[in-house]
Amino acid sequence: MSILFPDTSDQEINQTLILAEQAFHKFRKFSGSKRAEFLDQIGKEIEKNQSDIISIANNETSLGVPRLEMELIRTVAEIKVFAKVARMNEWVQPSCPKDHFQESIASFVKKNIPLGPVVVIGACNFPLAISVVGTDTAAALSVGCTVVVKAHPAHPRTCQLLADLVQLAMKKCEIPLGTFKLIHGENHTVTQNLVAQPNASCIAFTGSLRGGSVLSKIVSQREKPIPFHAEMGSLNPVIALPNKIEQDLATLAQNYIQAVNLFAGQMCTKPGAFFILKSPDHSSLRQFIKEAVKQQKILPMLSRDIYENYEKGISFLKKALPLLSTNESNQDRIKNPAYCRIFELNAVQFIQNPELRTEAFGPMSLFIECKNEEELFNCIESFEGSLTGSIHCTKEEEALCQKIIPMLESKVGRLLWNGFPPGVTPGSATHHGGPWPATTDSRYTSIGKEAYQRFVRPLCKQGFPETRD
Amino acid sequence: MSILFPDTSDQEINQTLILAEQAFHKFRKFSGSKRAEFLDQIGKEIEKNQSDIISIANNETSLGVPRLEMELIRTVAEIKVFAKVARMNEWVQPSCPKDHFQESIASFVKKNIPLGPVVVIGACNFPLAISVVGTDTAAALSVGCTVVVKAHPAHPRTCQLLADLVQLAMKKCEIPLGTFKLIHGENHTVTQNLVAQPNASCIAFTGSLRGGSVLSKIVSQREKPIPFHAEMGSLNPVIALPNKIEQDLATLAQNYIQAVNLFAGQMCTKPGAFFILKSPDHSSLRQFIKEAVKQQKILPMLSRDIYENYEKGISFLKKALPLLSTNESNQDRIKNPAYCRIFELNAVQFIQNPELRTEAFGPMSLFIECKNEEELFNCIESFEGSLTGSIHCTKEEEALCQKIIPMLESKVGRLLWNGFPPGVTPGSATHHGGPWPATTDSRYTSIGKEAYQRFVRPLCKQGFPETRD
Repeated sequence: MSILFPDTSDQEINQTLILAEQAFHKFRKFSGSKRAEFLDQIGKEIEKNQSDIISIANNETSLGVPRLEMELIRTVAEIKVFAKVARMNEWVQPSCPKDHFQESIASFVKKNIPLGPVVVIGACNFPLAISVVGTDTAAALSVGCTVVVKAHPAHPRTCQLLADLVQLAMKKCEIPLGTFKLIHGENHTVTQNLVAQPNASCIAFTGSLRGGSVLSKIVSQREKPIPFHAEMGSLNPVIALPNKIEQDLATLAQNYIQAVNLFAGQMCTKPGAFFILKSPDHSSLRQFIKEAVKQQKILPMLSRDIYENYEKGISFLKKALPLLSTNESNQDRIKNPAYCRIFELNAVQFIQNPELRTEAFGPMSLFIECKNEEELFNCIESFEGSLTGSIHCTKEEEALCQKIIPMLESKVGRLLWNGFPPGVTPGSATHHGGPWPATTDSRYTSIGKEAYQRFVRPLCKQGFPETRD
Repeated sequence: MSILFPDTSDQEINQTLILAEQAFHKFRKFSGSKRAEFLDQIGKEIEKNQSDIISIANNETSLGVPRLEMELIRTVAEIKVFAKVARMNEWVQPSCPKDHFQESIASFVKKNIPLGPVVVIGACNFPLAISVVGTDTAAALSVGCTVVVKAHPAHPRTCQLLADLVQLAMKKCEIPLGTFKLIHGENHTVTQNLVAQPNASCIAFTGSLRGGSVLSKIVSQREKPIPFHAEMGSLNPVIALPNKIEQDLATLAQNYIQAVNLFAGQMCTKPGAFFILKSPDHSSLRQFIKEAVKQQKILPMLSRDIYENYEKGISFLKKALPLLSTNESNQDRIKNPAYCRIFELNAVQFIQNPELRTEAFGPMSLFIECKNEEELFNCIESFEGSLTGSIHCTKEEEALCQKIIPMLESKVGRLLWNGFPPGVTPGSATHHGGPWPATTDSRYTSIGKEAYQRFVRPLCKQGFPETRD
């Protein structure tokens, strides 16, 4: 257990949620512009303390300054989006009682109201953007929910600094005590205790499938069920058709491997499998992939734990599959090196061995050649749910594409045309969600403006005088 | 087990869901107007066979012809609403990628798509409107989901006739086999088996808290979690303030008791508790309530089982509480008579004995006098979630009202001003949902146009040419 940030006691967790519930009844009655002011103030405090945040996060993670700077900009931008959500009050979505479905019921008015205290469990791979004041927290605050955040134990000091800045903004904006609180804990029992709290009204989690599944079971045993939103593991399959391969051989290989190696393969949308149809350019493509892998910079992984887990996964895969390419030989002297590895297999192996698809969090991917269309279709049918799916093809391949797209649609939350994930900018059309095991509820997104939808519910008022709220 | 409608075998249930999954991939690609045509055709078949449906339902239930006729009209009206939903395609809700939140990402388009096969488990109290082609089924079909319905064993012939009419409409409109199927079963294992099917993508259940809780546990143990929407028990508290009682003494008592006795108290929104603040008119109100109870027509309950359960609940309450009023002495010779009973208790008893609040499905209600505002507030704080909550007050009681309304808001899905439930007409501002235990997810409604929201999820397409879907 950390000396600086000891595990929060059961009693304190319980007390925090009671306070969050009490604060909720005050905070939800604040005007949208008041909540916007609070969110904007948080953004300002983060910008003002940018260099401290980056420096501490750089000490605690291996992400490096440029990536952290980028992430901080994104985080502040998202906070501003949710300040706008609060200010514009669109999220209330009042139903017009006199629309074409309901001409006669003028006395009905339906509006969204906030759910209550939200528990946010931050991720290891985004210490700023999916953390203390990431989308989950900003979205929840924007609609009037109070928030309790579980700090990721891999970067507790970064979390604490961000939380201190939120507390500062609370003071400046006179936000009720209990509206926001950070909880520390290295032991999993802290998180497990948090999600079992009777006063929690919704959980937002980003992390591994294993962690998400454990918490999901605990939440399902609550006396009062509440929504549990987890964003977890995802294969993110990419399919490339022969014409496209022929046309863009080098670029395709290059972009594929870059997407695999991006931030040491520690992105939720890393392409974990690349499918091609048997084509004359197969061996050239393999060659380009090999070269692209060799060119990749070897980045440090987020932590020793994650590195060791990645290597464990790789050992398992190495026993089952031949390596098409790796940059392991480039023996840089960096800590926790994230070697890029591409394994090769055929469609039957892919279909029959789902354990090979278990997300190895790191820069690895499976390269699968399908003998014919039927094999490709069988592969797609065997997919579990993913956050993204991508198809690369030319106009001439339209007919085949028309068969593949509906199949892929039913497996993913985002479909990319001639592109590789991530490539997502958080906005109103953003959808960062997908069928299980990508998330626990494919109807919601954890990134982008619509993320607030998880934290509101409709309330219908009937027969109220027009003059009263 | 019924000879006419034997329990569906495990194998057949599994096969039905496999077919529903296969049909889904075809049906979801149908145009909105084609699905609208199908729904309209179902409506027409029901209207054409109205007298047969009413006659069979009248034999199987004790609801009586007038109520069944009304319910049939409502059912057809709802089917037409969802035909409109399908035709207008509004449910797709395409996100405008160039709105004020997202100016630069023109290549993102987000649209709703259907989830997959939906399992609908019909209720006992609405053999037509919450049954084979009630809101759940119509909503699911409107957005392109396929549907498997579990018939309620209390009225299997009514269910079968409705299902036959759907099959007829399917034939006429050339809808793929497997798009809709009825499953019979008296044994609970049939339903339990249904909700565990790997190909089910969502469950919509209306029934008791006990039944919903059992199914909820089974769903939570699925390998692939799916949304489970249950609409269950609800207290539906009503609060009346002193001025209002003084003003409308007789009407208030009359309307309260009528709402309690409506359809033998077998409505989801029956007011199960009536709270008053100690007032000079207390004894007059009690008198009016007593008289109103005596005037109530004694209706037959839905079935022998339900009658016996109601009487069991009443025996339990009789041991704990004094009866303020009952019409038990009116010994009509009807089958399964639903005697109206009002029990009297004080705020402390109400707060300390949650078991008294367990929904007794039938025309009973608790009458609670609170000594002061604090006691009333404590009662409200102790409420579990409900579908509705009502407040009766005058303009002069605005200050107290402003304290009560926010408290009630956090406990209910619909708030009525000087009214009694049900009083709900299905439409776009309708919300028939509420916090647990009223439903499993307060963010959704099981009645009204928005009911389709349970069955869709967003899909984001990125980088697709503008010309292609």
